[in-house]
Amino acid sequence: MFTADYLNVKNGHLCAGECDTVELAKTHGTPLYVMDEDTVRKNCRMFKTCMEKNYQNALVLFASKALNCLEMCRIANEEGLGLDVVSGGEIYTALKAGFPADRMFFHGNNKTRDELCLALDNHIGTIVVDNLFELEELNELCGEKGVKANIMFRIKPGIDAHTHDFIRTGQIDSKFGLALENGEALEAVKEAVKLPNVTLTGLHCHIGSQIFGDEPFKEAAKVMLRFYKQLKDELGLELADLNLGGGFGIKYLESDQPMAYDAFMAQVAVIVHDFCKQNGLCEPRILIEPGRSIVGAAGITLYTVGAVKEIKNVRNYVTIDGGMCDNPRYALYQSAYTVVNASQADKPADYTATIAGKCCESGDLIGENIKIAKPDKGDILAVLSTGAYNYSMASNYNRNPRAEMVMVKDGKARTIIKRESYEDLIRNDI
Amino acid sequence: MFTADYLNVKNGHLCAGECDTVELAKTHGTPLYVMDEDTVRKNCRMFKTCMEKNYQNALVLFASKALNCLEMCRIANEEGLGLDVVSGGEIYTALKAGFPADRMFFHGNNKTRDELCLALDNHIGTIVVDNLFELEELNELCGEKGVKANIMFRIKPGIDAHTHDFIRTGQIDSKFGLALENGEALEAVKEAVKLPNVTLTGLHCHIGSQIFGDEPFKEAAKVMLRFYKQLKDELGLELADLNLGGGFGIKYLESDQPMAYDAFMAQVAVIVHDFCKQNGLCEPRILIEPGRSIVGAAGITLYTVGAVKEIKNVRNYVTIDGGMCDNPRYALYQSAYTVVNASQADKPADYTATIAGKCCESGDLIGENIKIAKPDKGDILAVLSTGAYNYSMASNYNRNPRAEMVMVKDGKARTIIKRESYEDLIRNDI
Repeated sequence: MFTADYLNVKNGHLCAGECDTVELAKTHGTPLYVMDEDTVRKNCRMFKTCMEKNYQNALVLFASKALNCLEMCRIANEEGLGLDVVSGGEIYTALKAGFPADRMFFHGNNKTRDELCLALDNHIGTIVVDNLFELEELNELCGEKGVKANIMFRIKPGIDAHTHDFIRTGQIDSKFGLALENGEALEAVKEAVKLPNVTLTGLHCHIGSQIFGDEPFKEAAKVMLRFYKQLKDELGLELADLNLGGGFGIKYLESDQPMAYDAFMAQVAVIVHDFCKQNGLCEPRILIEPGRSIVGAAGITLYTVGAVKEIKNVRNYVTIDGGMCDNPRYALYQSAYTVVNASQADKPADYTATIAGKCCESGDLIGENIKIAKPDKGDILAVLSTGAYNYSMASNYNRNPRAEMVMVKDGKARTIIKRESYEDLIRNDI
Repeated sequence: MFTADYLNVKNGHLCAGECDTVELAKTHGTPLYVMDEDTVRKNCRMFKTCMEKNYQNALVLFASKALNCLEMCRIANEEGLGLDVVSGGEIYTALKAGFPADRMFFHGNNKTRDELCLALDNHIGTIVVDNLFELEELNELCGEKGVKANIMFRIKPGIDAHTHDFIRTGQIDSKFGLALENGEALEAVKEAVKLPNVTLTGLHCHIGSQIFGDEPFKEAAKVMLRFYKQLKDELGLELADLNLGGGFGIKYLESDQPMAYDAFMAQVAVIVHDFCKQNGLCEPRILIEPGRSIVGAAGITLYTVGAVKEIKNVRNYVTIDGGMCDNPRYALYQSAYTVVNASQADKPADYTATIAGKCCESGDLIGENIKIAKPDKGDILAVLSTGAYNYSMASNYNRNPRAEMVMVKDGKARTIIKRESYEDLIRNDI
């Protein structure tokens, strides 16, 4: 019924991390993002353990764009993860959280000059260079600043990850990275090794998001290894790092089956070991970048039910006090969610509802034809698996203040992001 | 070539309100929202004049969700418009801008109790009640506070406005309002007139957004008038106000043909006059709610070009330093925009570009296969007609700070919304 095991039912109410969600809603207000700390940490450790057990020379990076805030950066640091950052704002936040710069990897298809400066001035460990324009600019900036930057290249391995078009990024028709198949990746490597101010430490690929099968990942690993061999053969170059990216699917619906990470890592380890052995290559360090799979199912969003509109022979609209402003994923991708009537969590989910937000826009829905226990006005609805790409994509559309986020653990909740005030909304208005 | 007449070319650069946009970008940074004050005011006056000329008893409301900020509320007030607000945040902003509460109309399909309190405590002129739950709650709250509220009802006239599914709101399968065809609208009116703490002053309908034909609007007016007659016949009730909503299409592309508002208003006036005369009805005040058509084409967004990726036999990606974080409309609706290379505005637009944003998401595009003058790295691109639903829908996705907005007039630019700082991003983080 639920998408994660920190969720259960007590006294008819949905509980998260031993906190009664109806009480949380009363105390903190709604909409309310709720993250379960134990689940976040368990996920961090699970990826770390799976990697270290199967392939010792490994590093797990938290792809912080899924949920970048001070507290998540602190937790990722405490759990010994590296950090994938994609903007000056993410770098700034991570630094403020005390995240060590040398374990940050700076991604992005179009880093601005200011962002590159911020990264260099703060000695960000590795810059994942997307294209030749950036390579040139970075080398020049390093020269001006008298520093040398560790870089990786973002490579398009040409893998079609069979997922939603919008989040498929490994194929040649992508704004990201350098293609293998037309030789531009090889050219970039040749160029980089000639430049005085950058050190090429490895390559990165990312084939998409919310992918359930492990075959595309294994295929990408093989493609990348063949390119490592080519670099050794043609340029005598052996790279230290191989970053296989992220994109592991999570459980939004009961029917979603995330891959068995341990078995998957074991297979990847075998692929790398075998390939390197057969081809006389040094084994690179393997990096992976889970984001959604660390925080996604660890979070839920609580809303208060407003009007319930039963339109005969059409559908039942259940309105909530949030919507596309705090979770635009249905509007953007028609993403499916599991929704629970937290106030009546012991009742059968036999009412078919379209969950409609409060924004003045027809597309402001959280989902259509979702089964929940029949709600009354004032009930608390919980949308599950909203820990990733909800707060991080939230807007002030319709001038709605962004929601508070609490972290729950052992029956206690602490605020990690305060609710925006009306004053906040006009702070930059003149 | 351009979508509005405040745009022209001088010294090879695109100018807006007599300001060189390349200079604006240099001075203020990019991404930069640019609004042309004269165009905004001209649009306000045009609607006001069209209404007053053709139908004296009229009020034009600015649908502020299109661009709600202090300065736009001030301008709408100075131009004598009313204001359509859809949340506590919009009410708060308008009040802070000194907008008179009695000319505000509070819309929304799920106003929270707190928002209704805010509206009542500040004597907001009219509350456009969406449903019976809200009617009941409002009447109760008014009783508690010892006040009486003027209300209108949001009615679904059952009109299909032939536009994008997401922004079609007049049909029965909508989260908004009360349907005519199943009798719920009539029931609501009967209920409202019995309640002691609310005064029903009129009805409201809104049939969708970005609509070009005037037929659906005229049809909606007729449907509403027939309902006014029914109310008089059955309940002896004559309502003072009839709000026909907004949704007038604007020029995003050269081929878009906004309707001739003056002729349209004249036709609506005839429809109302004739119907009321034939049926012995008092003529109601007519309200309309343009939002996009006041600010949309009055604004542009400036970006700096980063990498240009020409992928042979695939497409040309031109990357910019903004994207779905400041303009999510392509990601949401695949909205079409006109884009101009502001740095080479006198060159032929003969280069086919896919304009890609800087967010780590493949769907972060501003448009595909758009004709622009071939850009170099560092060129300034202008996306036209971004004055509506760009800033208002902006997010901090990827932790990108939200862009600055300047108002241009007579060759001068003044900041009306400051650029967010990195400090702003973590202001509510704990």
